[in-house]
Amino acid sequence: MNSDLLIANITKQVPLSTAEQHLFTSLLEPRTVYKKEYLLRQGDICRHDYFVNTGCLKICYTDEKGIECVTKFAIENWWVIDIESYLYASPCFYYYQAVEDTTLLQISKTNLEHLLQTIPALQQFMTTRWQNSFIALQHRFVQSLSLSAEEKYRLFREKYPGLELRIPQKLVAAYLGITPEFLSRLRKKAATDFS
Amino acid sequence: MNSDLLIANITKQVPLSTAEQHLFTSLLEPRTVYKKEYLLRQGDICRHDYFVNTGCLKICYTDEKGIECVTKFAIENWWVIDIESYLYASPCFYYYQAVEDTTLLQISKTNLEHLLQTIPALQQFMTTRWQNSFIALQHRFVQSLSLSAEEKYRLFREKYPGLELRIPQKLVAAYLGITPEFLSRLRKKAATDFS
Repeated sequence: MNSDLLIANITKQVPLSTAEQHLFTSLLEPRTVYKKEYLLRQGDICRHDYFVNTGCLKICYTDEKGIECVTKFAIENWWVIDIESYLYASPCFYYYQAVEDTTLLQISKTNLEHLLQTIPALQQFMTTRWQNSFIALQHRFVQSLSLSAEEKYRLFREKYPGLELRIPQKLVAAYLGITPEFLSRLRKKAATDFS
Repeated sequence: MNSDLLIANITKQVPLSTAEQHLFTSLLEPRTVYKKEYLLRQGDICRHDYFVNTGCLKICYTDEKGIECVTKFAIENWWVIDIESYLYASPCFYYYQAVEDTTLLQISKTNLEHLLQTIPALQQFMTTRWQNSFIALQHRFVQSLSLSAEEKYRLFREKYPGLELRIPQKLVAAYLGITPEFLSRLRKKAATDFS
């Protein structure tokens, strides 16, 4: 189990002593979710906080027309949690499915709460993490309402560098809220623009 | 200056000793923003965290067609901050304008950071605040993509009880992303449904 990426992710924001790092690492469990398997299904209760070491998950819901809406992707160095389900033990509205074989580290709610009580810097890390998650979602919201598909595609490539080469195009299209055919046209245009 | 509502807002989530409450209160400044005045304009730097005691603000941006988009309202007992501007000293993308005469309490970034260092429970309050803000924004995002105007209107009335009687209908329509005429039809239908 390699926790270097996770520890670096935290210590980039807040300092942790060697003892605190060891304590954190001792409470992590490895988890593998193979391609097409679910980390969490709609209706599950989320009882862990997760960190992606390698691979990619899609976070989705099905709209009232039965269409899969991709709200985001979680790739290496991303935290994953269904925060509403985790906080309130309510059924997940979203589902979390592996797009590639994905290795994660997970920590249970009980253990994470213990860490937050024991390591004050970690509480500060959590505040910053959720403030930044809020900012990212705000951007995505405004973009979805205001930007052209071309602009949204450009931002997707900025946010997830190289990801479009790893995953099916129909998933990128579902994230952008456009058809795969339209995405194909955007890709050709982008290739021409940057050639 | 009445800080009872603010202190109750915090102590509903986390305990604060009397000394901690006094320390917090001693660092608050009162602020009044009269109807149509701005708390923050687009391009300003947000240097405070704000709490609404009375009144109502609208939080908006102007889209590329010059149309005002209302992202949310801040009423009594709500916190207001432009978190991206506050954290990164970047210009506000949103503007914060009073819809009614609004009284607030504000705390400067320096003082809030001092409090967060001094009162550990406050850091926990902040994490919870931002987790809940994230959940609320996630709901609004999915609703904006998936729900009918009628359903969005029902949720608006649930989230902001009585607010539609206090503010111009065109603002409610701008929040819902529909025309005032269409809102008027929804209101008549709701009045019939609930009569």
